[in-house]
Amino acid sequence: MNSIKVFAPASVANVAVGYDILGFALEKPGDEVIVRFSDQIGFRITEISGANGKLPLEVAKNTAGVAALRLLEHLGKTDLGIEMQIHKKMPFGSGLGSSAASAAAGVFAVNELLGGPLTKLELLPFAVAGEQVADGAYHADNVGPSLLGGMLFIRNNDALDVHQLPVPEDLYAAVVYPEVEVLTKDAREVLSDTVSLKNHIEQTGNLGGLLIGFFECDYELIGRSLRDVIIEPQRAKLIPHFAEVKAAALKHGALGCSISGAGPSIFALCKGEVLANNIGAAMQQIFNNQQINNQLFVSPINRDGAIKL
Amino acid sequence: MNSIKVFAPASVANVAVGYDILGFALEKPGDEVIVRFSDQIGFRITEISGANGKLPLEVAKNTAGVAALRLLEHLGKTDLGIEMQIHKKMPFGSGLGSSAASAAAGVFAVNELLGGPLTKLELLPFAVAGEQVADGAYHADNVGPSLLGGMLFIRNNDALDVHQLPVPEDLYAAVVYPEVEVLTKDAREVLSDTVSLKNHIEQTGNLGGLLIGFFECDYELIGRSLRDVIIEPQRAKLIPHFAEVKAAALKHGALGCSISGAGPSIFALCKGEVLANNIGAAMQQIFNNQQINNQLFVSPINRDGAIKL
Repeated sequence: MNSIKVFAPASVANVAVGYDILGFALEKPGDEVIVRFSDQIGFRITEISGANGKLPLEVAKNTAGVAALRLLEHLGKTDLGIEMQIHKKMPFGSGLGSSAASAAAGVFAVNELLGGPLTKLELLPFAVAGEQVADGAYHADNVGPSLLGGMLFIRNNDALDVHQLPVPEDLYAAVVYPEVEVLTKDAREVLSDTVSLKNHIEQTGNLGGLLIGFFECDYELIGRSLRDVIIEPQRAKLIPHFAEVKAAALKHGALGCSISGAGPSIFALCKGEVLANNIGAAMQQIFNNQQINNQLFVSPINRDGAIKL
Repeated sequence: MNSIKVFAPASVANVAVGYDILGFALEKPGDEVIVRFSDQIGFRITEISGANGKLPLEVAKNTAGVAALRLLEHLGKTDLGIEMQIHKKMPFGSGLGSSAASAAAGVFAVNELLGGPLTKLELLPFAVAGEQVADGAYHADNVGPSLLGGMLFIRNNDALDVHQLPVPEDLYAAVVYPEVEVLTKDAREVLSDTVSLKNHIEQTGNLGGLLIGFFECDYELIGRSLRDVIIEPQRAKLIPHFAEVKAAALKHGALGCSISGAGPSIFALCKGEVLANNIGAAMQQIFNNQQINNQLFVSPINRDGAIKL
């Protein structure tokens, strides 16, 4: 029986000034999911590779599984025999939206297997529900870009009121993942549940500036606006050598540099691929100097999101 | 000797979700300023009408005076003989940027008298310095629109990093000024100096949604985004019958309705002039029913700002 193989990319959430409401997709890394019909009734996950046994085969505990299952429930097709294989091809606990990529790939794959009854946008709630299994929170700033691609603005996570932002063609991201552990739970707990009004005003100014910069293709404005005065100052301490990595990125011409999602990955936005490669190498060098294993990903903004391979 | 007569319009600051960083200009009301050369050395204010004696002729204490004087100092022309008349043609203490309109008109008039050595954008710092005399704070969310026109986003007030937003052609404002006193000082003091992280996220979502709505001419998105969860809930109690006025505006089809600046004026954004007139009348009716004197202004977004008459 024919199988469907899909890819869903990693993503960078928060993007300095859009905590919980902004994220973008990378071209790589990402996860692959393969689905096929089976004679055995019901939906099952038969294989997970690349996760060192750390992800559950049990559908109800697996982000890709739950996302797919919610879709099948919605379509009234839970009695169909479907098998899923998940091939993790990206680090998890990296701040690159690994569980979101799996959820996006899982729901997209099953929808494709069924002939595409829903649009990608219609799949979003199921993907978000899937990621919620891992993350606890219902938000789309990773899973939205992973599924839909682009630089995605989420006006409201409960309503999943999402909007693709235009992004300049030459906008590249250099993302370095240092192989140190930052638990999402810790990254949340370190955040104060209040923000000073002064910082709120500054952050809203920068968020607006960033959006205007995207719409007007104004790289300098994008650069001036990529300044997080709220989240980054609280979380930076969880990531060893963050300040030096950021300084290296800015010194080499990054428009801005901040924490990807809850970290420990650090992203820089840059104008052009050559510069992005140079900036990425400079960021990486800081971790290399400290004998911290790390991975570098350089990518334009991925406009496609989840795709059939 | 020839005189120059200029007009600078009232403005609506904050615009629900852009506290301190967003404002737009109305077509009316506004202030007029007349300047002419005089044989007497130095810059003087010779007349103020429409202010019931409440505004000072002393240059250093007058917003229009200070704005003009800062320009003259910048140009090294403080020894020129210049007389200024200020004709207040709008209420003050209304939340409609009265002192900002005077400051914008004052600096624009003197610049015109001198043959226009600076652009309007170059005049902005002097206008902001002028308004600061009345307001205490250095921000451009009233004086920027008054001078430059349009829907103005201020990424950063210290840097005066200002950006004109595109606005849909049919976007109208209905603004009702109830003749009750709300001191800017009280409107400030009622605000907590912290914001919950949850509200910060919701407000940034709405701010971004509003900007995207303007860029994409999406009235529904503008409507969904005009929801202030931070400032309005704290200030509404300072304005009698605010909730009823807002409910009337929304019931009659306003995209959104909130407090103009520090109040007591209340603005509604609407699609189309006819609707704006109806909505304005409905808002006004609430105050009429309570025997509260009030004024209604219906206007598209004024793209011109300060103009020579």
